[in-house]
Amino acid sequence: MPDLNDATRGRILYGGDYNPEQWPEETWQEDVRLMRQAGVTTVTVGVFSWARLEPTPGGYEFDWLDRLLDLLHAAGIGVVLATPTASPPPWLGHLHPETLPQAENGTTVWYGSRNQFCASSPEYRRRAAAITEQLAARYGQHPALTMWHINNEYGTHCWCDATAAHFRRWLQHRHGSLEELNSAWGTAFWSQHYSDWAEILPPRQAQYIRNPAQLLDFARFTSDALLECYTAEHAVVARHSPGIPVTTNHMPFWRGQDGWAWAKRQDVVALDLYPDPDDALGAQYGALVQDLARSMAGGPWMLMEQATGAVNWRPVNRPKPHGLTRLWSLQAVARGADAVCFFQWRQSRQGAEKFHSAMLPHSGPDNRTFREVTALGAELDRLGPAVSGAPVTAEIALLHDWDSWWAGEQPGRPSQLTGYQETVTAWHRALWESHHTTDLAHPAADLSGYRLVVIPSLYLLTDTALDNLTAYVRSGGTLVCGWFTGVADHQDRIRPGGVDARLRELLGLAAVHHWWPLAEGDRVHCENADGTGFDGALWSEELELADAEVHARYRSGELAGRPAVTRHPYGEGTAWYVSTQPEPEALRTLLDRAAREAGARPAVEGLPAGVEAVRRGELLFLLNHGPQQAKCEPPGEWEDLLANRRADATVVLERHGVAVLKPVGA
Amino acid sequence: MPDLNDATRGRILYGGDYNPEQWPEETWQEDVRLMRQAGVTTVTVGVFSWARLEPTPGGYEFDWLDRLLDLLHAAGIGVVLATPTASPPPWLGHLHPETLPQAENGTTVWYGSRNQFCASSPEYRRRAAAITEQLAARYGQHPALTMWHINNEYGTHCWCDATAAHFRRWLQHRHGSLEELNSAWGTAFWSQHYSDWAEILPPRQAQYIRNPAQLLDFARFTSDALLECYTAEHAVVARHSPGIPVTTNHMPFWRGQDGWAWAKRQDVVALDLYPDPDDALGAQYGALVQDLARSMAGGPWMLMEQATGAVNWRPVNRPKPHGLTRLWSLQAVARGADAVCFFQWRQSRQGAEKFHSAMLPHSGPDNRTFREVTALGAELDRLGPAVSGAPVTAEIALLHDWDSWWAGEQPGRPSQLTGYQETVTAWHRALWESHHTTDLAHPAADLSGYRLVVIPSLYLLTDTALDNLTAYVRSGGTLVCGWFTGVADHQDRIRPGGVDARLRELLGLAAVHHWWPLAEGDRVHCENADGTGFDGALWSEELELADAEVHARYRSGELAGRPAVTRHPYGEGTAWYVSTQPEPEALRTLLDRAAREAGARPAVEGLPAGVEAVRRGELLFLLNHGPQQAKCEPPGEWEDLLANRRADATVVLERHGVAVLKPVGA
Amino acid sequence: MPDLNDATRGRILYGGDYNPEQWPEETWQEDVRLMRQAGVTTVTVGVFSWARLEPTPGGYEFDWLDRLLDLLHAAGIGVVLATPTASPPPWLGHLHPETLPQAENGTTVWYGSRNQFCASSPEYRRRAAAITEQLAARYGQHPALTMWHINNEYGTHCWCDATAAHFRRWLQHRHGSLEELNSAWGTAFWSQHYSDWAEILPPRQAQYIRNPAQLLDFARFTSDALLECYTAEHAVVARHSPGIPVTTNHMPFWRGQDGWAWAKRQDVVALDLYPDPDDALGAQYGALVQDLARSMAGGPWMLMEQATGAVNWRPVNRPKPHGLTRLWSLQAVARGADAVCFFQWRQSRQGAEKFHSAMLPHSGPDNRTFREVTALGAELDRLGPAVSGAPVTAEIALLHDWDSWWAGEQPGRPSQLTGYQETVTAWHRALWESHHTTDLAHPAADLSGYRLVVIPSLYLLTDTALDNLTAYVRSGGTLVCGWFTGVADHQDRIRPGGVDARLRELLGLAAVHHWWPLAEGDRVHCENADGTGFDGALWSEELELADAEVHARYRSGELAGRPAVTRHPYGEGTAWYVSTQPEPEALRTLLDRAAREAGARPAVEGLPAGVEAVRRGELLFLLNHGPQQAKCEPPGEWEDLLANRRADATVVLERHGVAVLKPVGA
Repeated sequence: MPDLNDATRGRILYGGDYNPEQWPEETWQEDVRLMRQAGVTTVTVGVFSWARLEPTPGGYEFDWLDRLLDLLHAAGIGVVLATPTASPPPWLGHLHPETLPQAENGTTVWYGSRNQFCASSPEYRRRAAAITEQLAARYGQHPALTMWHINNEYGTHCWCDATAAHFRRWLQHRHGSLEELNSAWGTAFWSQHYSDWAEILPPRQAQYIRNPAQLLDFARFTSDALLECYTAEHAVVARHSPGIPVTTNHMPFWRGQDGWAWAKRQDVVALDLYPDPDDALGAQYGALVQDLARSMAGGPWMLMEQATGAVNWRPVNRPKPHGLTRLWSLQAVARGADAVCFFQWRQSRQGAEKFHSAMLPHSGPDNRTFREVTALGAELDRLGPAVSGAPVTAEIALLHDWDSWWAGEQPGRPSQLTGYQETVTAWHRALWESHHTTDLAHPAADLSGYRLVVIPSLYLLTDTALDNLTAYVRSGGTLVCGWFTGVADHQDRIRPGGVDARLRELLGLAAVHHWWPLAEGDRVHCENADGTGFDGALWSEELELADAEVHARYRSGELAGRPAVTRHPYGEGTAWYVSTQPEPEALRTLLDRAAREAGARPAVEGLPAGVEAVRRGELLFLLNHGPQQAKCEPPGEWEDLLANRRADATVVLERHGVAVLKPVGA
Repeated sequence: MPDLNDATRGRILYGGDYNPEQWPEETWQEDVRLMRQAGVTTVTVGVFSWARLEPTPGGYEFDWLDRLLDLLHAAGIGVVLATPTASPPPWLGHLHPETLPQAENGTTVWYGSRNQFCASSPEYRRRAAAITEQLAARYGQHPALTMWHINNEYGTHCWCDATAAHFRRWLQHRHGSLEELNSAWGTAFWSQHYSDWAEILPPRQAQYIRNPAQLLDFARFTSDALLECYTAEHAVVARHSPGIPVTTNHMPFWRGQDGWAWAKRQDVVALDLYPDPDDALGAQYGALVQDLARSMAGGPWMLMEQATGAVNWRPVNRPKPHGLTRLWSLQAVARGADAVCFFQWRQSRQGAEKFHSAMLPHSGPDNRTFREVTALGAELDRLGPAVSGAPVTAEIALLHDWDSWWAGEQPGRPSQLTGYQETVTAWHRALWESHHTTDLAHPAADLSGYRLVVIPSLYLLTDTALDNLTAYVRSGGTLVCGWFTGVADHQDRIRPGGVDARLRELLGLAAVHHWWPLAEGDRVHCENADGTGFDGALWSEELELADAEVHARYRSGELAGRPAVTRHPYGEGTAWYVSTQPEPEALRTLLDRAAREAGARPAVEGLPAGVEAVRRGELLFLLNHGPQQAKCEPPGEWEDLLANRRADATVVLERHGVAVLKPVGA
Repeated sequence: MPDLNDATRGRILYGGDYNPEQWPEETWQEDVRLMRQAGVTTVTVGVFSWARLEPTPGGYEFDWLDRLLDLLHAAGIGVVLATPTASPPPWLGHLHPETLPQAENGTTVWYGSRNQFCASSPEYRRRAAAITEQLAARYGQHPALTMWHINNEYGTHCWCDATAAHFRRWLQHRHGSLEELNSAWGTAFWSQHYSDWAEILPPRQAQYIRNPAQLLDFARFTSDALLECYTAEHAVVARHSPGIPVTTNHMPFWRGQDGWAWAKRQDVVALDLYPDPDDALGAQYGALVQDLARSMAGGPWMLMEQATGAVNWRPVNRPKPHGLTRLWSLQAVARGADAVCFFQWRQSRQGAEKFHSAMLPHSGPDNRTFREVTALGAELDRLGPAVSGAPVTAEIALLHDWDSWWAGEQPGRPSQLTGYQETVTAWHRALWESHHTTDLAHPAADLSGYRLVVIPSLYLLTDTALDNLTAYVRSGGTLVCGWFTGVADHQDRIRPGGVDARLRELLGLAAVHHWWPLAEGDRVHCENADGTGFDGALWSEELELADAEVHARYRSGELAGRPAVTRHPYGEGTAWYVSTQPEPEALRTLLDRAAREAGARPAVEGLPAGVEAVRRGELLFLLNHGPQQAKCEPPGEWEDLLANRRADATVVLERHGVAVLKPVGA
C-alpha cells in the first residue's frame, strides 16, 4: 500500500486548501505565482467542488479542473485531489430530501451550510460514488496528482429511518441475535426489551435518560457508517491510481470517529489542528493532537489544516501574533508531521468562512501574514532532507480509546463535571511539561516497547485490554492508572464488584465502596507519604485496599484518612492507582517520578519553563512557548539547521523562537 | 377501604424496588438470603416488567413471576406488586406511534427511555388495562401480596391531537359552554376567542407568551388525565384484591400532579424522596416532603423510594457519608412514615440508572452500604411496635395548593425570580428550625384544629378559600399571610382591586399600588417597630393601609418609609401581612413569635443548632443534622428505644446520630 | 399625503390603547368618564379585535364598535382605529394551518398567543384584506376617526414553503438571474451553487454555519414581506379615508424591520418605548429611540406605547417611582413627539399581559398611578400650543443602517461579543452626555446639513454610501469613523483589501493586517498624543497607516506601539478613525472634541451631571435623570411653561423634575 513517503519524497509538503472555483480564472495565475513565491509544494483541490463539477444531476463539468491541474502541474505544484462528497449540491437535497440528515427530534437538517448528508442514505452513496468514479477516471493518472483526499471532516450524525434500517443491519452483524442485543443493551431495565428487529431505532428524542448501551452502539455505528462512506470512495480512487496514497482529514481529538479504526483504512493519517492563539496551553493541546496523529499513523503524518491567524467559529477569534504560525508549524514537524498545510490558500470574500484567515489574506501579499508564510516555506524546504520520514520515539504510552470516551461521557454518570478530553489533556500535559514524549495507544495494543504506561481514566476496558495490561505489568512494565477505570465491559455493563477483578488484583485494591465525585470548584486535600501535600479535584473514591501500599491519603472531606494514591508491586512490575485528579504540579511530579523509576527519560534535562523539547530522529527541536526570551544549554555539540551554523553552547530562543539542532558530525 | 395498616400490621415496612428480571434466576436465591439478612420485609416488584410480562402483543409470560412470588413468600417477604404501565415495551410505540407523547413543538418523544406514553391515548389505555387485568387476575389473591403499586412517578405531558381531543372533553365538563370557556380564559385578549370547540388545542409552541388560563387548565387537565389512568388501574386491581391497599408513588414536591386530588383516590400515600447529600438544607427539604406526605395521607404514609447513597441524575451525584441513610430514614419515621423503602434492592449493571446506589451495591454485601442497610433493618424492626400507626400532631398549618403553584409560576408575571417551591421551603424552614411541627393543608381545608396558619404566598385563592380564611381568623385563629397572595381567582382572573377585597379587609389593607419585585441579589432594608431590622429579598409592595398596624417599615429603596409587615386584629383573631421575603433568621423570629402568641409550642425547647425534634405519638425523636456531636437535655425521663436502655439526662448525639425517646412509664 | 399634524391639530395627543372588548359595556361609561378626567384626547381601538369583529369566518359583528366609537366621539375623544390583523382568530389557524408560521426547524408555531401569521400566506393576506376593507368602509368617515393604525409591532418570521416561494419571487426581482444570485450569495463556497430557482429555500435549520448572504437577503425579504402586508392594508384604509393619516407602531430599535424603508410608506412614524425603570441608562436608551423615531419621521412623531409602571416581559418587572412616567414622557416631547400614549388604558384582568401596567390600574382610579396620569394629561394640554409641530434641530448625524446590522451580526464573524445596538448605544450615549442633539441617518442620506457625522461601526457600506461619505468630508465635513467599518459590500462580499479602498483613502490607512477582537472582559490600554490615556474594549486592529496622523497608540497587548486612533485631513474636511471601542468617558471626550472642532455646540453648557438638555423649536427642555435635586443656570431669561411663571436664574429640578423653558419675549 502506498504511504505518505510516496507523496513527500524527502520533502516536507507545504501548502493548503485551494478553492479556485471562488475566483475568476485570471486570479489563478496570480495564485500560482504567489504560491511559488511562498514555497508552496502542494495544494488540496476540490474539497467543496461538487456543485461546480456536477452543476445539474449527472451533468459533469471538468474543463475548469483540467485547466487548473495543468496550470498547477506546469508550476511544479502537486495536487491533493479531493472527492467533493462532504457537501452535496442543493439539487441533491431538493430532488432527494431523504439524503438530508434528521436531527434527534426528527426535524430535517437542510442544505444551505455544509455536511448535509445522511451516511446511510443509498441515494447519497450512489451519487457520491458516481462523482468519485468520474473524478478518479479522469485524474487518476494526472501527473500533478500527489494524493487523494476523501470527503472532509466526516462528522454528520443522523437519526432518520434510513439510518434506523442501517443501524439494525449493523447491530445484527455485531450482536448476531436479538437475544444477544437485548442482553448487551440491558433492555430488561425500564422494559426496553425488543421483540422484533424492526422495533429498534437510533436513540431519538426521549422522555428521560436514554439507554446507554444503545447510545454507545450508535456512536460506534455512526463512526462505522461514515467509515463505510470513506472506504467506498477510497476503493474507487485506489483502483484508478495505484501507488497514490489516499487520506481524509480528521478533526483534532474528535469524538465522532474511532481514530484507531479509521487509521487502519487510510494510507495517510491527516489531521486538522486549530489551537486558540489566546490559550496559554494551546501548544500543549497541539502536542496532544500531534502525538495522537503520529500514534494513529505509526509514523509520519500530515497536518492537513491549520490557520495562519484567526478562525471564524470561536466566540472571539484572535489572530496569531508574529512568529506563532512558524512556532506551531515546526512543533508539528518535531512531533512527526511531514506535511504542513493550511486552510486555506486565499481568504474567501464570501461564505460562512470569509473571516477564517488564510495564507493570502484579504489585504493581499503585502501583509505580515504572507511574509511569515513565505519565510516558513523556505525553512521547511531547508529542513526537508534532514527530517522527512524520520521517526519520533516515545518511551511512554498514554492509553486512549474512543469506546471508553463514548461510554464514559454519557448522562446518568457519577459526575457531569468530568470530561474525557479534559482528563486526557491534563495527564498528557503533566508529561509534556516534563519533556517526556508520549505516544497514545489503544488499550489492547502491544505495550512491550514502553517503559511507562499511563491511563488517565478509562471507564470501559475490554477483557482483552485488561489481560493486556496485566501481562504488561507482570512482565516488568510500570502502569499509572487513574480514577474510574475498568468499571464497564465492552457493552457498558458494570463489571462484577464495580471494578474489574483483574484490575483490582493488579492494583492491590479490595473494593471501591463509593465513587465520590467532588462538587464544582471543590478540592480535597491529600498528603503524600513523605509529608508533602496536594489538592485533588473533580473526583475521589472510598477505597479499601488489599495489598497495595499507600502513597498518599485524603486529609480533608468525608474520606479523610483513607487512601488516595496507591502503589502496588505486581509480578516484575509496578502498578499505581490515582483515585483523584491531582492538581497539575502534583500530577507532573507523580508521573515524572513513575517515569524515572521506570527508566524513561525526558528529551533534555534542565530546560527553562515554557520551552518544549522533542527529539525526532537524531534532531533535537527546542520550541519557546513562553512569553520571553529563553536560554537553553542542551548537552553536546550541535549544528543549528535553521540558522545554518554551529550552535552556541547557550541556545537563545526569542519569544516564539525555535531551534532545530543536529548533533555535530551526525 | 383498605389502608396502610393493612400492609404494616404493626411493623415499619422495610425494603425496596426489586427488579429480578435484570438478573439470572440463580441470583434470586442470593437476593432472598441477603434480604433476610438485611431485615427486608417488603419488596416492590414489576414496576418495569411490561416487556418481560408481555414480550409480544398479547403474548403473556408469567411463569417467572410465579416462581419469584413463591420464592419471596416462602422467605416471608411481602410483595408490593406493581402494574408495569409506566414503561410500555418498544412494540407498543412501534405498532402504535400514536401512543407516544408529542412535545410542545409537535415532535415525537420516542421509546428508548421510560414514561413514553400519552395519557390520552385510547390504545395505551386499552393495553395498560389489559396487562393490569392479567396481573390482577393471576396474583390478586397471592399470599405474598401486600399492596398494589400502580405505574410509577406519573409525569409525562403530551400535546398531541389525541390529547387535544381529550382536553376538549375535559374543558367541556369543566366549563360547560364555549361561552364560559372564552370567559374563563379571557380570550377577548389578543383575539383568542374560540368559535368552535374543535379549534381548542393544548398550549403548543407559540410566537410569544401563551394564554395563562389555558396553561393553568392544561396543568389541571394533565394531572387529571394521569389520575384517570391511575384510577382505571386501581379499579381493576381492587376488584381482584379486596382488602389489599393500592398506591402509586409521587415524586417529591412535584408540580405535575395535584397531590390533594390524587391522595383522595389512593388507599396509601407513597412518596419518593431524594435530598442531595451535599445540601446543607437537605434535611429540611426532607422534612417538608415528609410533612406533605403525611398531610396528603392524613396519617401514616409510605416512603417508597430513597437512595442508600448517590443518585445518578444530578450534575454531581454525591454519596452519603456514614450514618446519613439511617438519619434520614428515621426522620421519615418521625414524621409519620410507616414504611422505609429504597430504589432499589440490587444495583443494576446496565441501563440508565446503573450508577444509582442501591441496598446491595455493585461491590456486593461486603460493603459499608450493605452493613448500614442491615443495621437499619434491625432498628426499624425494633421500633415497629412502638411507632407503627402512631400519629404526628401539628399545631400549625402551612397552606399549599397546586392551582396556585400552576397559576403563579407562569410567564409574564412580575418577577421570574420568585419560585413557588422556594418560597414554601423558606417558610417551612423557618418553622422547622424552631422545632414547630407543621402540616401542609389545602386553603379550603378545615383549619379549626390549628393554632396558627401560614401562607407563604398563594397567588390564586378561590372564593371558598377566602371565606375559609376569613372564618378561621374571625373565630380566633392567627394567620400570617405572605406577599402576592389572593391576587387571582380560580381562573387566574385578577381580583377587582388587584387583591381580593375580603383579603384586604382581613389584613387591614386599603390598596396595593404596585408589586415591586427586587432585582437579582437586591435587598431592601426593613425596620421593626422595636427598632430591630432585617433585610427583605425578591419582593416588596407599595402598600396603603386601612386599619392594620405597622409591624415593620421599609427603610431603603423607593419604598422607604412605607409599611412592610403589618398586623391586624380581626374578629377574635389576628392577621399578619408580610409584603417582602424576610431573610431566614427574620422570618424564623417572626413566625415563632406569631406561633407563640397563638399558643403553638415547639416539640422541645432549648435544643442545640442542627438538632431536629419531632414528636410522634408519645415518642420524641431527636435527630442530629449538624456537623458535630450535639448534647440535648429534653425535660422529663426517657427510655432510649434504639439503645434499649434508660436515657441519660443529657442525650449525646454523634454526628448523624438519632435518639428515639419514650417517656418512662408510658 | 396626510401627516401627523392632521391628527394633532396643535395639540399633543394623549391617551393609549383601549381594548373595550375585554370589559362589559357598563364599564365603558366609567372608562370614558375617567378618560376625560385624565385629559385623554385619543385612544387606539381594535388592535386585537379580529375575533370579536369576525367571530366566525366572514360573519362580521360591528354593532359593538359602532356604539363604542359613537360613545367616544360624543365625549370628544378621538380614535386611532386599528386593523386587527396582528392576531388572527383561532378559526383561521384551525381552518388554514398553512397561515401559521413555521420555525427554522420546520415545526409549527400555533395560535394561543399572538402574531401567529405567515406574511407570505395568500390566505392570511386575503383574510386580512377582507376585514380591513370591512372596517375601512364602515368607519372610514366616522367623525371620531383620527388616524389609522395598521396591525401591531410587525415581527413574525417564517420559514415555511409559502415563504420559500415568496422568497424566490423576491430574489428573482432583486437579482434578476440565477447566475446573479449565485454570485451575490457566493455559492461557490461549500458547493452551494443553485441550478434551479426551485432549490432555493429560506435559511432553515442546517448542520453548521449558514450562508451569510442568504441570511442577509432573508432579513431584507422578511422586512419587505411584512411591509407588503402593511402597504396593502394602508392602501385599503387610505382609499376610504382621504386626509386621515395612517401608521403602524414599530418596536423600539427593532432589528426585524428596515425603519428607513418603512418610514417612507407611513404617513406617521410611531414607536413603542419601554426602557427598564431599573436601568441607570434607561433615559439614554429612550433618547436614542426617540432620536431614531424623529429621524425616521423627518419631524414630529408619535409615541404610541409606553408603560405607566412595570411591564410584564422582563425577568424582573420593576414599576416606575413617582415622577418617572412624567419625566420620560416629556423627554419624548422634547425630542419631537407630538403624541404621548400608553399601552394601555385599563389594565387587563386576564391574558398574557395582565401584569403590564396601565393608565388605570387594577386597583382603580384611587391610585398613585392614575393621579400621575391625570396630572400629566393636564401638563401636555398646557404645552400643546407651544410645542406641537415644532422641529428639533441636530447638528450631528449618527449613521445607522439595518443592512449593516443584519450583515454584521451574523455567525462566523471575528467576535460574537460585539453587538450592533450596543455599539450604537455607546456612541449615542457619548454625544447625549455632552448634550449634543443627534439625528440618526442612513449612510446614503444627504449629510450636508450636519457639522459632524459619526459612524459607530458600519460593517457593510454600499458604493453609494462610500461615495456619499467621501463627498461629505471632501467638501468640509468632519467624520468620526469607528472600527470594523466598510468591510463588506451590499451583498456581504468582503471589499478588496479587506476594507474598501475609498474608505482607506479617506481615513489615510494603508492596510488592516488583522482584526484583533478582545476577549471577554479584556482591555487594551491606549495613549493619546497628549500623554493622557484610556482603555479600549471589545476590539482592536493591526493597522498600517498611509498618511493619517496618529492620535492615540496602543500601549498594551500584542499591538503595543501601533496606531489606535487616527486623524486625517481630507479635502476640506477631516476624517477620524477609532480602531477600538474606547471606554465611555474617553469616547465622550473624543466625540465632544471632534464636534466642537467641527463647530457643533451642545444645547446648553455647564449642566450638572444627570440633567439632559434638548432644544425643540425655541423651547429648552431640562430633564433631571439624576438621583438628587439638580440646579441649572441656563443663560438668558426664561418663562417656565409648566410652572406658568417667570423662571428663576437658577432652575431647581427635583429628582425626576422637568422644566420647559421659553425665552422671555419669544
